[in-house]
Amino acid sequence: MMEEQRPGSKVPVQIWEFSDSNKRNRLDYVITEEPLEIRLRAGSEEKTLAVTMRTPGADFDLSLGFIFSEGIVTGLESVHSISYCIRKEIAEAQRYNTLLVTLNQPHLPAMGQFERHFMTSSACGICGRTVVDLLDKKENVSKSSQNHWKISADILYKLPEEFQTRQNLFKTTGGLHAAALFDIEGNLIQIKEDVGRHNAMDKLIGHALREGLIPMDKHIVMVSGRASYELLQKAYMAGLKFFCSVSAPSSLAVLVAKKFSMTLVGFLRKKRFNVYNGIDRIS
Amino acid sequence: MMEEQRPGSKVPVQIWEFSDSNKRNRLDYVITEEPLEIRLRAGSEEKTLAVTMRTPGADFDLSLGFIFSEGIVTGLESVHSISYCIRKEIAEAQRYNTLLVTLNQPHLPAMGQFERHFMTSSACGICGRTVVDLLDKKENVSKSSQNHWKISADILYKLPEEFQTRQNLFKTTGGLHAAALFDIEGNLIQIKEDVGRHNAMDKLIGHALREGLIPMDKHIVMVSGRASYELLQKAYMAGLKFFCSVSAPSSLAVLVAKKFSMTLVGFLRKKRFNVYNGIDRIS
Repeated sequence: MMEEQRPGSKVPVQIWEFSDSNKRNRLDYVITEEPLEIRLRAGSEEKTLAVTMRTPGADFDLSLGFIFSEGIVTGLESVHSISYCIRKEIAEAQRYNTLLVTLNQPHLPAMGQFERHFMTSSACGICGRTVVDLLDKKENVSKSSQNHWKISADILYKLPEEFQTRQNLFKTTGGLHAAALFDIEGNLIQIKEDVGRHNAMDKLIGHALREGLIPMDKHIVMVSGRASYELLQKAYMAGLKFFCSVSAPSSLAVLVAKKFSMTLVGFLRKKRFNVYNGIDRIS
Repeated sequence: MMEEQRPGSKVPVQIWEFSDSNKRNRLDYVITEEPLEIRLRAGSEEKTLAVTMRTPGADFDLSLGFIFSEGIVTGLESVHSISYCIRKEIAEAQRYNTLLVTLNQPHLPAMGQFERHFMTSSACGICGRTVVDLLDKKENVSKSSQNHWKISADILYKLPEEFQTRQNLFKTTGGLHAAALFDIEGNLIQIKEDVGRHNAMDKLIGHALREGLIPMDKHIVMVSGRASYELLQKAYMAGLKFFCSVSAPSSLAVLVAKKFSMTLVGFLRKKRFNVYNGIDRIS
């Protein structure tokens, strides 16, 4: 069970770094986020078990650990082999994102409860780019919106403090994520907290929907922690054009931002931030 | 669409706080993590759409935001009503963990690709305790293991530095999680990094499986960020008895640790940590 490692675990990106009154263009790296489809085979049966957004590397370990920790196998002796699903007809970028785990048994275990994926995938061909292309085909509120506003770096510098001040639950438990909605003057409209980042984002979008704020193409969202594909996807669906996070974005988050002309700001902390896309909205 | 909020968003716990050479017992709060089952109804059809581990509060917004951001509905006009699934025959703790979203259409949309849950649930009755009880019924490597070792606080104090030193990808990208395996002398055996915390944990467990280290009942795992149900579940399946995280645990993580007599350490940073369960393994 030797393992190849591509695509790489990090991706170079050109960013704009803002710090106080300075601004400079430089090369940076973001962590690779790519879908991994884990397919399970037993006898003549084969099925997709899960699609997880992961950083390439140790994929065989990932698939082994997943099927073990979910109770699908109880030991290494149940696993006959693991291999990448590599066929010449699929694009190179897609070749190392599908793993076939073959079990030492004639039939697949009952798997209904294990399915974790929330996207359909064609057999043996998936990669970040195809995932983003699928997103483009969804009905979306933001497509028709014209969008030419700007916000100053000084307003962005003020968001982290407002964000922290309003994280009430975080103060007592230290254990959760938040997603906050601001208008383009930097006024906080709403903040939602949750143990899961995607839940905090869903709560915020649900609130916006009830308040008639969607599409949110004249708003800013800021989230604690990292910016992943899942969050950017939700932001896109809600018509957001301006997404900020306290920490780093993933490669796929950057790809979504570029594809849909969204401004993506990372490492937004006291008087500093990086811009990964859409600097035209920052004055 | 008024919303009730229970169970609460935080839970009181008795913890042991270690700091340098001091140790004291005090009351603390952890963030509530409870399953929320979102059921979708249209006409006479009804189906579970997702089970997500969330912090109670703004559940209606969460369900709205989820079905909108996943493209299941395109606006509020598609939603007829949202209600908690409250029946007298189900236990009180389970009553506010199932939401029924009724759509203004005669049939359910095709939903195969949206299913996100990885546990089965009986109709209209789910809560953290039932989830943990289900876990107890799984085949598990650790059940038979006897386990009486101790580790000193001084060894634990050294783990964060070792952990940080070895997070190679984090240094260049600042954007990912890690899970590390230590022996009970505090020697690092392996560290895995990933954009997703559950993936880092799966990679580590897969590695341990290949190396014949499972059950890992004489090892320590340390993860970046928070300790959630999902991570503790994986740790339990791998036979781990000692789990540390850099940040806070959730209520459900504490529940798993208590149920299966695991030591759960949180906020493990330079010369300090909290113990949420299993202090008998710390000398």
